Amino acid sequence: MEPALTDTRIQRNGVIAAAGSEAIVICETLTTTTTDAPEFIDITHEVAAIVAASGARYGQVTVFSTHTTAAIKVNEHEPLLLEDMARVLCEAAPIDGHYEHNDFTKRTVNMEEDECENGHAHCQHLFLGTSETIPILDGQMAFGRWQRIFLVELDHGRERKVLVNIVGVKE
Amino acid sequence: MEPALTDTRIQRNGVIAAAGSEAIVICETLTTTTTDAPEFIDITHEVAAIVAASGARYGQVTVFSTHTTAAIKVNEHEPLLLEDMARVLCEAAPIDGHYEHNDFTKRTVNMEEDECENGHAHCQHLFLGTSETIPILDGQMAFGRWQRIFLVELDHGRERKVLVNIVGVKE
Amino acid sequence: MEPALTDTRIQRNGVIAAAGSEAIVICETLTTTTTDAPEFIDITHEVAAIVAASGARYGQVTVFSTHTTAAIKVNEHEPLLLEDMARVLCEAAPIDGHYEHNDFTKRTVNMEEDECENGHAHCQHLFLGTSETIPILDGQMAFGRWQRIFLVELDHGRERKVLVNIVGVKE
Repeated sequence: MEPALTDTRIQRNGVIAAAGSEAIVICETLTTTTTDAPEFIDITHEVAAIVAASGARYGQVTVFSTHTTAAIKVNEHEPLLLEDMARVLCEAAPIDGHYEHNDFTKRTVNMEEDECENGHAHCQHLFLGTSETIPILDGQMAFGRWQRIFLVELDHGRERKVLVNIVGVKE
Repeated sequence: MEPALTDTRIQRNGVIAAAGSEAIVICETLTTTTTDAPEFIDITHEVAAIVAASGARYGQVTVFSTHTTAAIKVNEHEPLLLEDMARVLCEAAPIDGHYEHNDFTKRTVNMEEDECENGHAHCQHLFLGTSETIPILDGQMAFGRWQRIFLVELDHGRERKVLVNIVGVKE
Repeated sequence: MEPALTDTRIQRNGVIAAAGSEAIVICETLTTTTTDAPEFIDITHEVAAIVAASGARYGQVTVFSTHTTAAIKVNEHEPLLLEDMARVLCEAAPIDGHYEHNDFTKRTVNMEEDECENGHAHCQHLFLGTSETIPILDGQMAFGRWQRIFLVELDHGRERKVLVNIVGVKE
């Protein structure tokens, strides 16, 4: 028995954008210096400015962290909520838990001179994402009222790089 | 020492689609009224209909929630499994846990007249995603046999808006 | 009160890629045979080869699992870390936990002849993603130093299929 797929509560509201035209691809880099972990850095303003300057009228923007211990997440920017989310991440993979990745007596792969213990940061990243993709409508990110985009530092303060990659069609 | 990247078990099966042509971007909105939380609303049928009507032969569709307490997820539509997944989300961020976001004596940011306690919903959303992106092959979503796409209500019943954003090339 | 969106620590580094040209869409399939769960299969080398052969100079590649109990994840390839991440997934949704999906005396939907108990695998998948999207710059994936892409088997060893879907513009 297949579950019914039609749900009378779901409404299609017609095409709100349609475009067929010259393809455009734009990529910019953001760099930021984090100071703590878990830390949520709101990059909404900078991403919105890149979208506005790109000339893309419709399409999508992918915001991509180039790191394995810093993630990208869309959620609300309310300072107390950021504390809650930091706590929940630390419960899912505690900083003082045991991680084989931190056992430098056993580990031989990807060892750096200044290697630090960051197994918790990789494991917190497991629950988050490396990127978020947001539709572009009429030259702007189609965000709902409370949506903001964060770089989430999970390891420790340092310089981080985020790619803002737009694929769409021109004005 | 770098880990070996080649794995003889991985096979490339040749190009199954290739197209170079006029770019197409289409965006439609779905609206739905949820009734409970966590609630999984199967929107596969409606997304498939939008893809079929779009005229996109190859490319991808991004299904995007415009909310911070409602997520998008691909998984199997089996009613008992939906109960299991709801339970696991509630264990990761319990509704009766302590959330600073719910302390209206301290909180000053993003306060509405009808503010309700939904710290758990934001924290459950942390583990899920705001969107899913699915390849389009020959004018259809390239879903595997059991894959269905859900809007996941995490807060309480209300009207929700989902964008279905297609970037591809024409028939 | 709106939180301040400008953060003087965030720097825009100028456009590193911009292209307006003929759209290109390419899709290839990878197949692999998994042997265990949770198992991380590194498919970076094969995805990079598909991107290189595609002729796409700028754009993005979406790596998509066609399964509900096998996920796609970007993280570091360090063997001890893969053990840590497997353990954390098993803590989030233990294999010996109770799942209604596994109660074949109650379940009537999506039952196969060789149905096996895999509620834990679906619930672990809830925390991961069905796909990851990576920008393409100058014909290559724009990965940071430690980033590798994995198919994550959550159920048991079997044949799995991954789509590698590129949307971009030509050289």
